[in-house]
Amino acid sequence: MISKAQIKHIRSLALGKFRKQHKQFVAEGHKIVEEMLLTGGFQYQLFVSENQVESLSPVVQAAPFQLISDNEMKQISQLTTPPGVLAVVEFANQMYALDELGSNLNLVLDGIRDPGNLGTIIRTAEWFGVKHIFVSPDTVDPYHPKVVQATMGSLFRVGVTETDLIALISEVQADGFQVYGAVMDGVSVYETKLTSQASFLVIGSESHGISKAVRALIKNPISIPSYARGKLKTESLNASVAAAVLLAEFRKSEA
Amino acid sequence: MISKAQIKHIRSLALGKFRKQHKQFVAEGHKIVEEMLLTGGFQYQLFVSENQVESLSPVVQAAPFQLISDNEMKQISQLTTPPGVLAVVEFANQMYALDELGSNLNLVLDGIRDPGNLGTIIRTAEWFGVKHIFVSPDTVDPYHPKVVQATMGSLFRVGVTETDLIALISEVQADGFQVYGAVMDGVSVYETKLTSQASFLVIGSESHGISKAVRALIKNPISIPSYARGKLKTESLNASVAAAVLLAEFRKSEA
Repeated sequence: MISKAQIKHIRSLALGKFRKQHKQFVAEGHKIVEEMLLTGGFQYQLFVSENQVESLSPVVQAAPFQLISDNEMKQISQLTTPPGVLAVVEFANQMYALDELGSNLNLVLDGIRDPGNLGTIIRTAEWFGVKHIFVSPDTVDPYHPKVVQATMGSLFRVGVTETDLIALISEVQADGFQVYGAVMDGVSVYETKLTSQASFLVIGSESHGISKAVRALIKNPISIPSYARGKLKTESLNASVAAAVLLAEFRKSEA
Repeated sequence: MISKAQIKHIRSLALGKFRKQHKQFVAEGHKIVEEMLLTGGFQYQLFVSENQVESLSPVVQAAPFQLISDNEMKQISQLTTPPGVLAVVEFANQMYALDELGSNLNLVLDGIRDPGNLGTIIRTAEWFGVKHIFVSPDTVDPYHPKVVQATMGSLFRVGVTETDLIALISEVQADGFQVYGAVMDGVSVYETKLTSQASFLVIGSESHGISKAVRALIKNPISIPSYARGKLKTESLNASVAAAVLLAEFRKSEA
């Protein structure tokens, strides 16, 4: 049983402005809820529909949940086919200390609009050991349902902070951090000295790249060389693909 | 003006079985149609709606097209917001000679189901100089509208052939090609000798990896090491991300 007010509240979290207002987002699906529970440290409310109560993994079963009808689940789910396991999760406190950033490679995303791309980048960032991602205000909300799905749980383990990129980059560059940016006309990443400590990698939007004002601050513009032959060729890589190739190269440079 | 029969025919191409039957697919949008025309060598029928006739690029303007009403365009478009430029394109003849494969790195996709992933992989493959991609019959149709969009035009310049992977890999391996496969438990790609001539790289599906029968044939299983710390971490990379990191590494090994 779930109250009408609860249903209305959870439904409202489909919209970014209510997610921001309540500092909550929705995570749906057996796997993603299990990842949230295993990661730990989150405040959440968990809902399981009657048709799924037999299929819960031991981890989800052990968590406190509210059993609701399949019809109630349909009303709060953001998916066409509700997986039957839904958590309302409070935003984790995205705190970070400058010295933690200093011992790491950090990622900066400037205007990524596609939720699938952002989710894939967060997942890839975790794979390559990135702990903090900074996103511009015009990047898609990291708690958008499609982003949450695409991260496959990585969202619970990588800190994502929305911030003014100009202020951030100016500050960390003044502090001696190296700031790299993926651009079309940079130095080949294979001919650049890469530092994966006290450094930031900036990735721009799918269609416009890094914004002009941010680009002007970047001291290390880098590019992934194309091996396509012929006059006519693809002009760019997908943002998540470019991020992946560059992150791999940074990590390799450590070895 | 466009006949009812034409409208019906073009609408039918939204379905894979009719695309296969007629050996035709639909490409929509100013940019993608321009890429098709610039690449050249395609048989096509081009439709432009009245509201777009003023916005055509010189390349599209110079091509023979049929002017139709905005309402007619709505009926043949596969998109919610029709871009107003639509081409019905005949499949190019996907011919390839074994010696052409022999001078290249070739890609094999086993069971990629997500159209966005397949499109991104085709685009990335072109960037890294791959000319031929072989896909298993259970891979999503490369002429699916969402794939066509995601390739950003690369589909016109990379050959994509559906084939039985067991037969293909057995044959090329017998011919001395090196066959690499992206797996979870392979040798680190950074500790493997990579050959980007006379070689094949196999990428498996998003959820199940490379199928068992194909996996059994692969003599060079390779992996991308994870740099995530902590017990709990993301289990895998997105298929298009894994393909990109590996293709980049193959190309780099040439240098």
